[in-house]
Amino acid sequence: MSKLDNIMKPKSIAIIGASNKVGSVGNELVRRVIEFGYKGNAYGVHPTETSILGLPTYPHIYNIPESIDLAVIAIPAKAVSGVVDECNQAGVRNIVVISSGFKEIGGQGIELEKELLAKVTQYGMNMIGPNCLGIINSNHDISLDASFAPLQPVRGTIGFATQSGALASGIINLLPTLHIGLGQVISLGNQADINALDVLEYWEKDDNITQILLYLESIPDPQKFREVASRVSKTKPILAIKSGRSSAGAKATASHTGALAGDDTTAEGLLASCGVIREYYLRDLFNAAHVFDKCPVPKGKNLAILTNAGGPGILATDTANDVGIPLAQLSETTKQKLRDVLPPQASVRNPVDMIASAPTEHYAQCADILLNSDEVDMLLVIYLYITGKNDLPVLDNLEKLKAKYNNKPIVAVYMTTPDLDERISQELPNSTIPIFNFVVDAVTGLSKLCQRRDYLESTKITTPTYKVNKPLVKEVLESASLQNIHTLSVAQSLQVFTAYGLPTVSWGLAQNLADAKNIANKCGYPVVLKISSTKITHKTDVGGVIVNIKSEDELAYHWQNLVTKLNKAGMLEQIEGIVVMQQVQGSNRELVAGVVKKGENGNQMMFGLGGIFIEALKEVAFRPCPLSYTDAKALVEKTKAKNIMGNLRGNKAVEQEKIIEILLRLSQLVSDFDQINELDANPIMIDANGNVFVVDARIVIQTD
Amino acid sequence: MSKLDNIMKPKSIAIIGASNKVGSVGNELVRRVIEFGYKGNAYGVHPTETSILGLPTYPHIYNIPESIDLAVIAIPAKAVSGVVDECNQAGVRNIVVISSGFKEIGGQGIELEKELLAKVTQYGMNMIGPNCLGIINSNHDISLDASFAPLQPVRGTIGFATQSGALASGIINLLPTLHIGLGQVISLGNQADINALDVLEYWEKDDNITQILLYLESIPDPQKFREVASRVSKTKPILAIKSGRSSAGAKATASHTGALAGDDTTAEGLLASCGVIREYYLRDLFNAAHVFDKCPVPKGKNLAILTNAGGPGILATDTANDVGIPLAQLSETTKQKLRDVLPPQASVRNPVDMIASAPTEHYAQCADILLNSDEVDMLLVIYLYITGKNDLPVLDNLEKLKAKYNNKPIVAVYMTTPDLDERISQELPNSTIPIFNFVVDAVTGLSKLCQRRDYLESTKITTPTYKVNKPLVKEVLESASLQNIHTLSVAQSLQVFTAYGLPTVSWGLAQNLADAKNIANKCGYPVVLKISSTKITHKTDVGGVIVNIKSEDELAYHWQNLVTKLNKAGMLEQIEGIVVMQQVQGSNRELVAGVVKKGENGNQMMFGLGGIFIEALKEVAFRPCPLSYTDAKALVEKTKAKNIMGNLRGNKAVEQEKIIEILLRLSQLVSDFDQINELDANPIMIDANGNVFVVDARIVIQTD
Repeated sequence: MSKLDNIMKPKSIAIIGASNKVGSVGNELVRRVIEFGYKGNAYGVHPTETSILGLPTYPHIYNIPESIDLAVIAIPAKAVSGVVDECNQAGVRNIVVISSGFKEIGGQGIELEKELLAKVTQYGMNMIGPNCLGIINSNHDISLDASFAPLQPVRGTIGFATQSGALASGIINLLPTLHIGLGQVISLGNQADINALDVLEYWEKDDNITQILLYLESIPDPQKFREVASRVSKTKPILAIKSGRSSAGAKATASHTGALAGDDTTAEGLLASCGVIREYYLRDLFNAAHVFDKCPVPKGKNLAILTNAGGPGILATDTANDVGIPLAQLSETTKQKLRDVLPPQASVRNPVDMIASAPTEHYAQCADILLNSDEVDMLLVIYLYITGKNDLPVLDNLEKLKAKYNNKPIVAVYMTTPDLDERISQELPNSTIPIFNFVVDAVTGLSKLCQRRDYLESTKITTPTYKVNKPLVKEVLESASLQNIHTLSVAQSLQVFTAYGLPTVSWGLAQNLADAKNIANKCGYPVVLKISSTKITHKTDVGGVIVNIKSEDELAYHWQNLVTKLNKAGMLEQIEGIVVMQQVQGSNRELVAGVVKKGENGNQMMFGLGGIFIEALKEVAFRPCPLSYTDAKALVEKTKAKNIMGNLRGNKAVEQEKIIEILLRLSQLVSDFDQINELDANPIMIDANGNVFVVDARIVIQTD
Repeated sequence: MSKLDNIMKPKSIAIIGASNKVGSVGNELVRRVIEFGYKGNAYGVHPTETSILGLPTYPHIYNIPESIDLAVIAIPAKAVSGVVDECNQAGVRNIVVISSGFKEIGGQGIELEKELLAKVTQYGMNMIGPNCLGIINSNHDISLDASFAPLQPVRGTIGFATQSGALASGIINLLPTLHIGLGQVISLGNQADINALDVLEYWEKDDNITQILLYLESIPDPQKFREVASRVSKTKPILAIKSGRSSAGAKATASHTGALAGDDTTAEGLLASCGVIREYYLRDLFNAAHVFDKCPVPKGKNLAILTNAGGPGILATDTANDVGIPLAQLSETTKQKLRDVLPPQASVRNPVDMIASAPTEHYAQCADILLNSDEVDMLLVIYLYITGKNDLPVLDNLEKLKAKYNNKPIVAVYMTTPDLDERISQELPNSTIPIFNFVVDAVTGLSKLCQRRDYLESTKITTPTYKVNKPLVKEVLESASLQNIHTLSVAQSLQVFTAYGLPTVSWGLAQNLADAKNIANKCGYPVVLKISSTKITHKTDVGGVIVNIKSEDELAYHWQNLVTKLNKAGMLEQIEGIVVMQQVQGSNRELVAGVVKKGENGNQMMFGLGGIFIEALKEVAFRPCPLSYTDAKALVEKTKAKNIMGNLRGNKAVEQEKIIEILLRLSQLVSDFDQINELDANPIMIDANGNVFVVDARIVIQTD
């Protein structure tokens, strides 16, 4: 049984802090409970009153002559702890603490919250809050509004959990205009005990909740969030706002990956990886929720647009293009069927423009033809009231088609009279077609359905596990650890990468010129020299990297030069040798991959455009580790880095799968070895023939 | 007098095609004219009726016993031409042709439109349409609704001109919910005579119109559009949608600039250059119009956020960051004033969070403090109805502050009861604070005010004219023209660039090795060899570019090699010599600039990220030529190219002004010489010290 069961579906509740003072929170709470028609038994707790708004009221919770499933507490912060003792005495196991004055005010509030949580833990209680707006369950069997939101919510089947209580109140106010209803509302408050994750797991199993909306200011326990959200979003859509994007600054670290891992970029990757549909704005969250509430997830993403006006059809096409929805390519058969119905001035290409005079029947017939065709997965119907008002008959027909084609989303854009909502509620009260004023909201909503479709498809793909030389890496890392090495040398890092099957360039560690010549011969000229050291981390700064060595003579010359220079600088002792490596030729296509660990949003892989452009262009994306195949593919496709992987001015394209494999092997490596703290594969180069090489490696391990 | 004067403010009108048939366009038109309360004299024209809905009606327009300012024609396309003859007979000089069946249907319709336009021209008439919804002037002195939009428009002072008539109708339907009123509506139809430009010029001088909204599917006469729109937008805001973005594909041409000049990217640049605020979605167009309708243009862009709830404050901060609005940094003085008013739990940092209990007075006092401070240019007030409903008193106070601080925009986000609009219209009917449900719409609206503020500021900046060697370029181009040269040689192009003061690398044209050595010594090694030819345009393909020549020996070697190779290939005759040029060292920061001429949106300059990334990353922007200083600056700042101009891994920043000067000099060049058809300055390189060089040049001239 979930911690939340008796909170959200209590058979009896007590309101501690109930009050007869009009306008007080304690009075509002009682009024809400009564007016919303709570189906269980409700009591008030007040020092002196015996009845509040007709609710039987007792001085202490233990005086109530019935066992209480849930206590809702709205008294000054300092008194809460004592009341929790009394709840325990009365055998109450579930509390919602509305009172503020805890962690959110800092100082003494932090102490009060610690004390409160200690008692909750000690007594084995479940708690929502403190510092919250309360909870609502609008299911008719429960009908509990234990909140001080000023209006009653429109009832529905959406669960809304929010870190901002005020927002719950604000949204409840707007529900009639948002065209959605809420099944449950949970104001999370300070999340001292129950947090967003508990709510996700609870709603996962509650059949009355069909869709989950979250407003988060931080993601609790990213690793567990990923596990839970990935699972839940397989059965129910989760749409989330994660705010505080602008304050998220990247931390200054030595690695590129670390430097680019702003809190928000990693949050973005985490949410995407779990199939959580991230929204940036409340407007878009609720528009999408409206679409999800009433539409199935489509099989494909091809959109047909049916309109009685050209302009909005063009705008819909533009918007579909903006959000990445392809317009259905209508077959000749479909076009002919449309032609048979429509006048010659109409356009039967998608968008299908029936022209301004389109009667109800044209809408019905054309929508039927489009929905019936295999080319069409989703339908957008645009209705402009121009010459005759048949908006409701058109809608009525769409409703029938929706039943007939129940796996194809239908949304509508209506630019008709402002009393539309009213007329619909009177004449077509059971209408379930989402209607928007503007094309952008409708099409953007559909794009979120497509995003969900892609997530569900992606869960069918297995992530490969590669055969690698794990013992060798174990040995390298353990030996480094024994020597208290923080950053592995180039040779060590390349050894690790090679053991994990990464496509490193040919290389070898040379101790003397003879070694170097042998290795260079194996690699083939030109070659690169790199000092290998666990002490010198910035090889370039000390002149420790020499490129474009074209012959044995040049090799000898540079080798001597380098050794002399290091000797003079007293650095010869600090190196374990000099790596000789193949130079990737004719390539200026550079990619970068890397891993940061234990950041605010958990372990994350970065991938994107490399070279001098890394920081300047910030064409990088993050996804949580371990990567799924889909995560790796998303990384490859997310940024403009993919554009340099294609055919480019005589340079051949690299197969995307090769890059995906690199990312998955790196992910496997950091999963296998928890002691790897940071990792950069930078640069990853694509040569003119489309071959890909990891050219440099940097691995930082945990030392302590 | 404008062509539109007697169309939009006629003293008398005739509706040709007026009808007693309910539901017909001719009947609707008459009904609109009567119901909207037209102040002039109106007549019907119908073969047999003598009265339509009470309007005196005559068989022909010349039968009407009064001179008619405007004829509105709604009869079958084929009959229009004859009726125009009759109009002429009757001395009518202005017509609005609602009838469809012209150019938009192709074939015969094209012919009919040509015929119609010929008559209009012959008779010296002014015409709107054909194929339009009509026109509306809601000014109480006129009160003319000569359209068949189904509803009457809310009256206001916004002018809305649209290429989609249906859209006018749709928007009029939605006006009550959009909180704006329209002063004039012009459905442009096929724009055979009067087009969007005429409308702009007309509204420029009409004091009743304070803001202009456009829905365009194409931009008529880009050069004139730029001239007119730039001028009009200095006095009145122009907000425009230019649709058909997704169908705009770039044309395949030889130059990079041409290849990247998609119709929409150039339209984008054209609109921005004129100070036209481009919107992509109708929703955003009307939200911004709402803000413009009621707010002044701010002096600066610093935004203060005043809220009674933390969550929406964070969302507003995120959104401001998204749209580039800086949050005002409050001074200690301002913060202290806020502290004096607010309880200790409140936050006096911006966003100012007064907490949920904030009474009316806190709103009033804090808003006053913020508006009174120099740090604040704009104010966003967020009101969530949580514990007490004082939404209207708060609004009332804001209204008073608006009068007091009349140069600072105030917008509000209200999440209160759904009957808010109704209550406002009853209790505060004169309220002029724009109110939105969601932060994103309010903040995005404000960002458009900021965009306008920036445009108005930019018009104060003079664009420099540089001293250049124009005669030399004239000579080069004329000589090339005489020789029928299409693409100038490298040497010719560099000569032109040098004459216009562009920072080309040191270079010279060598005819023999001795020449080459001399030039190389002047340039300093390393140098580059490039064959100079007006016949061989792809130098690299024939191996005609050799880089990184480090010494006189290497120079001699490569010179001989190249000459031998060209000789073997029989190409030696096709070159005019070999250019020897300084090689920019240690640079991989490449930019690109170029000009395309006479595209769909006029002459345009492109600027952005160069190198192999040009096509892959598409980090380029376009602005019309000749460039203003502001255009040039916008080009430099618009794309991620600006990121590589900064300090980058030990490479010094380049001064932006140097790049701006390059663009302005190129612009001056193509303005001075109309025969230059295409031009690429590619690459433009930034060296490690932040010096900038134009390394290669390509100029294509008109030949005929």
